[in-house]
Amino acid sequence: MELQYGIIGPGAVGTTIAYELMRTFNSNQVHLFGKREGKVLYQQRDTKEEAVIETETLARFNDTLDVLFIAVKTHQLDRVIEQMEHVIEDDTVIILAQNGHGQIEKIDHPHVYQTVVYISGQKTDEGVVHFRDRILQLQEDEYTAELVEQLEDTRLEFQLQSHIETYIWYKLLVNLGINSVTAAGRQTASILKVPEIRNLCRNLLEEGQRIAEAAGIVLPETIVEDIMKIYAGYPDDMGTSMYYDIINGAPLEVDAIQGFIYRTGQSLELYTPYLETIYSILAASENGKINQK
Amino acid sequence: MELQYGIIGPGAVGTTIAYELMRTFNSNQVHLFGKREGKVLYQQRDTKEEAVIETETLARFNDTLDVLFIAVKTHQLDRVIEQMEHVIEDDTVIILAQNGHGQIEKIDHPHVYQTVVYISGQKTDEGVVHFRDRILQLQEDEYTAELVEQLEDTRLEFQLQSHIETYIWYKLLVNLGINSVTAAGRQTASILKVPEIRNLCRNLLEEGQRIAEAAGIVLPETIVEDIMKIYAGYPDDMGTSMYYDIINGAPLEVDAIQGFIYRTGQSLELYTPYLETIYSILAASENGKINQK
Repeated sequence: MELQYGIIGPGAVGTTIAYELMRTFNSNQVHLFGKREGKVLYQQRDTKEEAVIETETLARFNDTLDVLFIAVKTHQLDRVIEQMEHVIEDDTVIILAQNGHGQIEKIDHPHVYQTVVYISGQKTDEGVVHFRDRILQLQEDEYTAELVEQLEDTRLEFQLQSHIETYIWYKLLVNLGINSVTAAGRQTASILKVPEIRNLCRNLLEEGQRIAEAAGIVLPETIVEDIMKIYAGYPDDMGTSMYYDIINGAPLEVDAIQGFIYRTGQSLELYTPYLETIYSILAASENGKINQK
Repeated sequence: MELQYGIIGPGAVGTTIAYELMRTFNSNQVHLFGKREGKVLYQQRDTKEEAVIETETLARFNDTLDVLFIAVKTHQLDRVIEQMEHVIEDDTVIILAQNGHGQIEKIDHPHVYQTVVYISGQKTDEGVVHFRDRILQLQEDEYTAELVEQLEDTRLEFQLQSHIETYIWYKLLVNLGINSVTAAGRQTASILKVPEIRNLCRNLLEEGQRIAEAAGIVLPETIVEDIMKIYAGYPDDMGTSMYYDIINGAPLEVDAIQGFIYRTGQSLELYTPYLETIYSILAASENGKINQK
């Protein structure tokens, strides 16, 4: 029997995974699920490839899946969990391809993996544009090793890690600085020209580093400087996902990124005032929307 | 000879002062100066009074003033100082009716006073609406005592204080909490419903209190609780001046409020991370405008 692959969430990450699987497998093996049936125009800048990918709904799907990627925004996860029960079996491998951390506990299933995704793209009015990278970092074990073998003919670059927590926290910290200042300041990466903002990034990263260390995560000692160098390489007009979300009035993934780091620090009784201030300001943005309604 | 009164800045504060002086004195004694000649429609909610007040320009004014109120936004002060030289004499009394602190040093004149203004109103498209209060707190000395005597028939409520610094810092702290969270969070006072935001206000006020104390300012010991109670009484839809400025893309008075407090703390080697974060985010808003141009 042919394996069945499902991807929930037709955004940049989900559509890229679906497209790459569809290139290798039969079209009836790969299912991209959205809120409704429709089409996504998918374009890749690096390869110039274009495709129209159909979306299905979970409600009308009557099969079960061998592998399920969940690529919805973090605040949509609870709703998706309610809707996906009938497509899951005990040996389904579930891969959370989301930002942040702390969501994996929400899914009561023996084979759930948090992956750290490096797929750069953007949702547009018509569909999805993929910019670069197709990297997924996963915890190494017998299930993920088998998955990588199944998918070795695709262009998805799986990196199996013996300690995925390290990689999850590394990306959390990358997001912590730049997402916070671009969203709270409502500016693209050009905000890094302001010396006070670079200092704020560094202070946020140092607090994040202290929290990670206290939580037993082994990160490079030079992580703050390493990430500051990554930021320095960003083009001025680069927006982060959280920047685009706040500008567009969309829900922010603050609970899974800044919120997760902040709560981890609080549970370890750490004093992290820079993070606390940023978290408070960003968490309040949902209140603004409630009051507009 | 009749005394000459001038007011620079036809906003809510300046127009209210001008209107109240015009009720008591001859119209050729009171001059409201704006960027150009024009008219301001002035309305008082409490008294239902309405008036049309003419604005003059400093450039075309050939007399000198006995009393000058400066009621422009803090970032406009440098330009006003350049333009006002010819209307000032050695015994002119100059009253800075602005938010914040630290601007008085910019004016090289023997009789310059920072006043703490409690005049609530709003600039609208057509003019100015006055809501309530006409209170001006001033340092007590022979010049201000004479001024109060001159103006005793007006409805302006002058309060002469033996230590004006205390009152300046009190209002700085009132502004510090509410202006910061409404501007950084881009919401009216309804943002105070968010528990994290109330905590942030408290942390900002505690840092402000520490800075004031270290600077030798005597404030009530209960000031943090006192101000939190004031905030609790604000109606949900109340916006601060800094909130309206950031929403309208206007320059913020962050340098004279959060910036002044922060720099005072830095000069005293105090660690004030909540204030530092808020100051950094708000100070960066000018960068956003530069990059939009």
